[in-house]
Amino acid sequence: MYSIGIDIGGTSIKGIISADNGYRSEIVRIPTEATYGGIRILDNIIRVIEHLMQRVDSSIKISGIGIGSPGFIDMDGTVLGGAGNLPGWEGIQIYTPLHQKFGIPVTASNDVTVMALAEYCYGAARGANNCVCIALGTGVGGGLIINGQIHGGTHGMAGEIGHISVDTNGRECNCGQRGCLEQYAAAPSIVAIAKAECEKEKNYHSTAFAKRVIDSPDSVTAKLVYEYVADGDPVACNVNEIICEKLARGIGIVANIIAPDRFVLGGGVMMSGDIIIDTVKRYVSRYCWRSIYERFDIRAAELGEDAGVLGAAALAMRGIQ
Amino acid sequence: MYSIGIDIGGTSIKGIISADNGYRSEIVRIPTEATYGGIRILDNIIRVIEHLMQRVDSSIKISGIGIGSPGFIDMDGTVLGGAGNLPGWEGIQIYTPLHQKFGIPVTASNDVTVMALAEYCYGAARGANNCVCIALGTGVGGGLIINGQIHGGTHGMAGEIGHISVDTNGRECNCGQRGCLEQYAAAPSIVAIAKAECEKEKNYHSTAFAKRVIDSPDSVTAKLVYEYVADGDPVACNVNEIICEKLARGIGIVANIIAPDRFVLGGGVMMSGDIIIDTVKRYVSRYCWRSIYERFDIRAAELGEDAGVLGAAALAMRGIQ
Repeated sequence: MYSIGIDIGGTSIKGIISADNGYRSEIVRIPTEATYGGIRILDNIIRVIEHLMQRVDSSIKISGIGIGSPGFIDMDGTVLGGAGNLPGWEGIQIYTPLHQKFGIPVTASNDVTVMALAEYCYGAARGANNCVCIALGTGVGGGLIINGQIHGGTHGMAGEIGHISVDTNGRECNCGQRGCLEQYAAAPSIVAIAKAECEKEKNYHSTAFAKRVIDSPDSVTAKLVYEYVADGDPVACNVNEIICEKLARGIGIVANIIAPDRFVLGGGVMMSGDIIIDTVKRYVSRYCWRSIYERFDIRAAELGEDAGVLGAAALAMRGIQ
Repeated sequence: MYSIGIDIGGTSIKGIISADNGYRSEIVRIPTEATYGGIRILDNIIRVIEHLMQRVDSSIKISGIGIGSPGFIDMDGTVLGGAGNLPGWEGIQIYTPLHQKFGIPVTASNDVTVMALAEYCYGAARGANNCVCIALGTGVGGGLIINGQIHGGTHGMAGEIGHISVDTNGRECNCGQRGCLEQYAAAPSIVAIAKAECEKEKNYHSTAFAKRVIDSPDSVTAKLVYEYVADGDPVACNVNEIICEKLARGIGIVANIIAPDRFVLGGGVMMSGDIIIDTVKRYVSRYCWRSIYERFDIRAAELGEDAGVLGAAALAMRGIQ
């Protein structure tokens, strides 16, 4: 069975044809052009699908189209919002125009939910029928696999793990709360925390990392922070401790509620290596009921940037939202 | 189809025969005798089942036995722990002896999970395929219905909602964390908070409630607190605000993760009326992603003390853990 997987990002739309016999086409990628609005995004999805279909033998039957999108996708394929980097995407009906155009079933889900499905089918969550994926990127998102199925919750909105408060008096979040996980474990927050730590009197210019951050603050990225963590820079390592302690609080809370078999951490921040996993593991037992803690593990995502298209194609094959 | 539902409590074991045609027997109740250990508890479960079977016509076929128990029950029917008020119950294998004795399938799950199933089948959660029940009693427990099925999580441990931290620097919990929901919304915590509030200088003997609490502290119960809340006593009302603000934080966190259609609040504390629901609703939007908040409701449990046996019987009929 062949299906098409589409991954909608802020800068590009990617597509793949995947089959349950292991076949995977090359990935097609075109600009999202999100600034032109939701209809343009839809047009570009159609272009990606057309490109993909031209590449396979016409005798091959594509059974469905799966889409991973930022934000919330309702059961009927309407974008309900939450896709901050895609202006105009909210309110767009995805299923009807694509179904009319291609005559095959269309299913869509949140991009992190789709990533979770990919890791469950092909990556770090294989065999874990209850699994929570956390994507650490420009924000923090969550995707849930429950009993081997993706769990979208009401109107596909489950997994807003970035807005769990992990510090009652912590950093202000634009959602109105304080101490949201996203205010610690998202890439921009890591940078902000690094700058704040380096500006403290005791840290100011005290290490190579602190000097670099103070001297050229605009060049600081989460990736840079973790390069210095890998080198053992004490100020950078302290930033890592702050971030991972909060991340462990979030994981502990989710574990207490869902009792999953596994957590998978992915997203751009996790490209920086396994030190985050190791540090989080040191903290998480403090914030979780012991007998639950003893029964899950935490792993790094395995599929990287391909998780989106692979998960979307898997979504189409399963025919579920 | 007829099934037997057993509800194991700290003081009594209750049983019912229930059928999908609406038939319900009278409830049989005998002392748990937990101090005599786990085997005695098992013997008393057998006695309850024998009592029940004697009451129905011998032509009626009982299809299964369902059990709601405090603590965690593993897939194979072993009590994994977490049943603090049942010493000796940990490690007991439930399924094998009951199956050998009665020759019909046995399923067991956590008591709050079973309560959630009862409310989903017959009570306040009807129609809510994704639902979270929170039991406010001597502790705080959670039971999850996901996609119309109970969600036990790994080894039946899901729903430890009482140990979500809702105040990073809050009241110490015996689990090692600070600010666990159970430290605010369980009956003994409500009493402790009431006493602490009444002992504050500004509140000391200032209202009828404060006078009562100071003058006879040993007579204070959560029920008493809520009698004064219902009367509008300002100090008691402030206690209610403290409790419900924390409860709203917990509900907001769970909502952000699972995005359920409904929360159902039950347990002994909720016998005190709907004022808790009304107060929680005032706070919860602050602690939850807006578009999720707009799509769930919060209701009081409808089945009261019968939820345990009814849910256990429903569990047997469904044949799922």
